[in-house]
Amino acid sequence: MTGFVSFVSSGPGDPDLMTHRATDRLRSARVVLYDDLSAGPILDLAGPEADLICVGKRAGRQSPKQEHISRLLVDHARTGARVVRLKSGDAGIFGRLEEEIAACTDAGIGYEVVPGVTSASAAAAAAGIPLTRRLTARRLQFITGHDVTGALPEDLNMAALADAEATTAVYMGRRTFAELARRLIAAGLPPETPAMVAESVSKPDQTILRGTLAGLAQALADAPGGAPALILYGALSPLGDQGE
Amino acid sequence: MTGFVSFVSSGPGDPDLMTHRATDRLRSARVVLYDDLSAGPILDLAGPEADLICVGKRAGRQSPKQEHISRLLVDHARTGARVVRLKSGDAGIFGRLEEEIAACTDAGIGYEVVPGVTSASAAAAAAGIPLTRRLTARRLQFITGHDVTGALPEDLNMAALADAEATTAVYMGRRTFAELARRLIAAGLPPETPAMVAESVSKPDQTILRGTLAGLAQALADAPGGAPALILYGALSPLGDQGE
Repeated sequence: MTGFVSFVSSGPGDPDLMTHRATDRLRSARVVLYDDLSAGPILDLAGPEADLICVGKRAGRQSPKQEHISRLLVDHARTGARVVRLKSGDAGIFGRLEEEIAACTDAGIGYEVVPGVTSASAAAAAAGIPLTRRLTARRLQFITGHDVTGALPEDLNMAALADAEATTAVYMGRRTFAELARRLIAAGLPPETPAMVAESVSKPDQTILRGTLAGLAQALADAPGGAPALILYGALSPLGDQGE
Repeated sequence: MTGFVSFVSSGPGDPDLMTHRATDRLRSARVVLYDDLSAGPILDLAGPEADLICVGKRAGRQSPKQEHISRLLVDHARTGARVVRLKSGDAGIFGRLEEEIAACTDAGIGYEVVPGVTSASAAAAAAGIPLTRRLTARRLQFITGHDVTGALPEDLNMAALADAEATTAVYMGRRTFAELARRLIAAGLPPETPAMVAESVSKPDQTILRGTLAGLAQALADAPGGAPALILYGALSPLGDQGE
């Protein structure tokens, strides 16, 4: 008797922004593995019998190693359980999905990926603007603010990133954004390029700050710490109900 | 008495991949403006009293002009109605949202954007693979296969697009993909770069074809026509339950 693993995208945080498939999987799970990022009201959707196992960072503790998470997934599935691995945003975008899929495949365990609303889509929607614009923002790109060492990657494709005709979303970029902005400006992107920082999108403490590349980089450098942030810069729409 | 416009992302096509907020808005709408792309089972979720107005292309007919759609939105909202403007995928990604938001703003009509699952997320999930990979695919980018004239844009950022360390998703790219692939290969991207074509994602006739950049470009050139396709190329994961 072999179980099954559903990699379930939980969206930006508000359960209302989960898909119907995601909530169905959560309701019928026997075991749910979750990170702190996707916790809270979303976990309330799991059935009363489900085992809820936190595998994310907790204050003052080391984050569990990836191999440990993969082993938990496989071990629980081998008991025949329906296992949900909850991932914030869209599981396929910066969700470190590949290692866990490989563990399932190696162990002969079936899996599925339930897609979801990624943070960039949720942040733009919360600000009332589109991510692309027909004539002025025809390319959209997503990067992370840090590599496996926690630093801004050295080998960034600056021709791609310092492009005023694209919209760029930086995931997990709060701590390194001042350095990224410095490199973008050195590569020719104007300091006054429109930018936006969105924190805790779709949650009760959501905040959205609009400004310029240079201005918001300074604001983030002046206020280290704080909630995970999604940063947008580029050919952003001047519209929106959170306008400057 | 002023109405309200909800720009609602309907996801890739299966109602199960809509968010709860999206279906709630659809159920309580007085008027629903939809394109063919988002029609079918999703429209069945609208209430029996709702007016369903098709504003998309229909076989053998001219597509309504953008100004006409914007005027319909505003005119219906002015009657005090709750209007839903349904957009396939995520409304903020290649959904031509800006023109319609501007029309609402100019007319003093309130609006919201309900984010959704974009086609690239749905296509990767259907293939059982992530869109990003921790060490090898750290940048994800989205482009469209045509500009306002219907042709592949001339001024593409080739340094961004011919990058083997990114994953690129091409929306509405079927007709121009052979030309794009030729330019990518000329710019240095290897012809054997992994690629994938996904058609009718999440619908009963879903098909996913995996291969190489050169191979799939040839396949699409040999079979013009067909359903709208989402194309992925770049550092794609070799995993997945739809493997070659």
